[in-house]
Amino acid sequence: MTIPTRITGLLVKQHGYNTTNPEGHIRFESMDPYIELGEVDTPDLASGQVLVEMSMAPINPSDLHFLKGEYGQPRVQGKPAGFEGVGTVIAAGDDAYAQSLVGTRVSFAATPTGTGTWATHAVSDAELCIPMPETVSDHDAAGFIVNPLTAAAMFEDAKSAGSPGVVLTAGASQVSKFIVALARDAGLESVCIVRRDVHNDALTDLGATAILNQNDDDFDQRLKEVMKTHKPRFLIDAVVDATSTKIFNAMGSNSTWLVYGSLSAEIPPLSNPGEFIFMNKVIRGFWLAPWLSRAPMEEKIEVFGEVQARFADGRWSTDVAATLRLAHAPTELVEALADPRGKVFITP
Amino acid sequence: MTIPTRITGLLVKQHGYNTTNPEGHIRFESMDPYIELGEVDTPDLASGQVLVEMSMAPINPSDLHFLKGEYGQPRVQGKPAGFEGVGTVIAAGDDAYAQSLVGTRVSFAATPTGTGTWATHAVSDAELCIPMPETVSDHDAAGFIVNPLTAAAMFEDAKSAGSPGVVLTAGASQVSKFIVALARDAGLESVCIVRRDVHNDALTDLGATAILNQNDDDFDQRLKEVMKTHKPRFLIDAVVDATSTKIFNAMGSNSTWLVYGSLSAEIPPLSNPGEFIFMNKVIRGFWLAPWLSRAPMEEKIEVFGEVQARFADGRWSTDVAATLRLAHAPTELVEALADPRGKVFITP
Repeated sequence: MTIPTRITGLLVKQHGYNTTNPEGHIRFESMDPYIELGEVDTPDLASGQVLVEMSMAPINPSDLHFLKGEYGQPRVQGKPAGFEGVGTVIAAGDDAYAQSLVGTRVSFAATPTGTGTWATHAVSDAELCIPMPETVSDHDAAGFIVNPLTAAAMFEDAKSAGSPGVVLTAGASQVSKFIVALARDAGLESVCIVRRDVHNDALTDLGATAILNQNDDDFDQRLKEVMKTHKPRFLIDAVVDATSTKIFNAMGSNSTWLVYGSLSAEIPPLSNPGEFIFMNKVIRGFWLAPWLSRAPMEEKIEVFGEVQARFADGRWSTDVAATLRLAHAPTELVEALADPRGKVFITP
Repeated sequence: MTIPTRITGLLVKQHGYNTTNPEGHIRFESMDPYIELGEVDTPDLASGQVLVEMSMAPINPSDLHFLKGEYGQPRVQGKPAGFEGVGTVIAAGDDAYAQSLVGTRVSFAATPTGTGTWATHAVSDAELCIPMPETVSDHDAAGFIVNPLTAAAMFEDAKSAGSPGVVLTAGASQVSKFIVALARDAGLESVCIVRRDVHNDALTDLGATAILNQNDDDFDQRLKEVMKTHKPRFLIDAVVDATSTKIFNAMGSNSTWLVYGSLSAEIPPLSNPGEFIFMNKVIRGFWLAPWLSRAPMEEKIEVFGEVQARFADGRWSTDVAATLRLAHAPTELVEALADPRGKVFITP
């Protein structure tokens, strides 16, 4: 395997956070202000680090919030973007475990001390690499960490809260679909809130209990009925808009509003403070990064194994909207991201 | 002691909750639609119940939300209102402990199975009675439960959260003053948010770390400075308005917004959802009723003892705006409640 001296990637053009004028959404008219194709020197590998020759990387909402400077970690100008991907380890720093991975196909998460995955090669930590069997396809393996682990961890949270079911905004997203399948297998209800009816058959096939289109005239009425019938007490929210407030208001005592995304720029009203006092409702958030550091290794290994098994036997699968070459991404990305059918991937 | 056959009290005129048109505040133009002076039969005492000859009862914000039908329990038309008070037990149902209280001066909380405290007599449960030494005045003993225990329980919550201090909206309220004194004694910071500067000297004397008037032009600037200097991570909020959101936004990672009142009808914006995700912030509520049922008896006895000691030695004291006779309350109450200097009390 050849160790390159230079890495080609989609380099971040801006630096730090956008605190002056945050947009609060992830729509792009052009990628020009945010990324450009370019090269960086291959960094020297520190102890425990690995160099991965990339096969494929996904574009997640978190990547897009990051490019806009509205994510939980600051942009670093001139570094390749991309939070996760799949590839083959071709070199390792001074550490026995890291070196044992050389030649292995791995799914992995990027780290602030390494480089991003929208590139020909990426540097990350051996402990963030998950060896991947050939039974898991490149598209599934590329997005192995962020969405599946987010789904699995949040679903565990809902189960621990003792809720008989979950309500999912962005109900047809990859994370939501994963959770619908988890809920079906665990015998829990899942209520998907969508903005378009195009995914309804797919969600029904996956086992969704109910699908509500928030743009329908009878949405409020159906929401009340569904809440009364199924009594879910756990809202898993990627959107955070006035509809989220409406859902939270419609839920019973001891309900949780778990925020993990912010796809809407709309600022929801915090109506009915009595719900916190008299109904013991809670609003809190979920972020994978601290969960990955904090969760015990055995729990992570169990979750990784479950995710691999679900991809390998088809209980979970990744919907692909487009797979773009690195060199074409800057011009083709905006159009590809507008495709609602699935996720966009990048290959070298 | 004479056991009366009839109880005179301020009877609730409406029934159940106001779900059709909630007002979300506790201002009154007239008490006429809500209470009237009247009589009810003295109920037979069930096992464990006591009949208290009332000395004094306070009017708390929770009473006023209750009268408007916007509290955690429904109104019962024709029953005396009033959630707590002080008086002497003059009769008891079939229970040794209840009977042992006959002749004893007690502070007590009303229960849905008994009758309210804005009356000549009230029926409650012996286990909700706290024998009260003569060192605690009627005004302090009348409001012994709702405000002091709410303050003590919420302050314990802030300490458990490991916060170096608390931020208090309605910063000059009785509950806030109690918490300022608790914080001072525990070596924690307290930041009081007020709407008028009339109480600032009293708050400073009590040991408040900082007092910010939310109507001042430089409020936003001072809020940022105070947050930066003192880093409180616990907002104890009786108001819930746009200023509450501003305070929550200005607080650091791992902050809690604890809602225990709703003095404003303004609906705050839920801005910056990233705070839940990336900063692990939480919004939840506090209600004394479930705390009283749930907290272990030893914890309650310890808190009761601490509250008695604080009233007896003057570390805490109750600010009195007016003390009204039962018969005059319907006409005099609106004006008395508008007095910002303290609490309004009712005597038979």
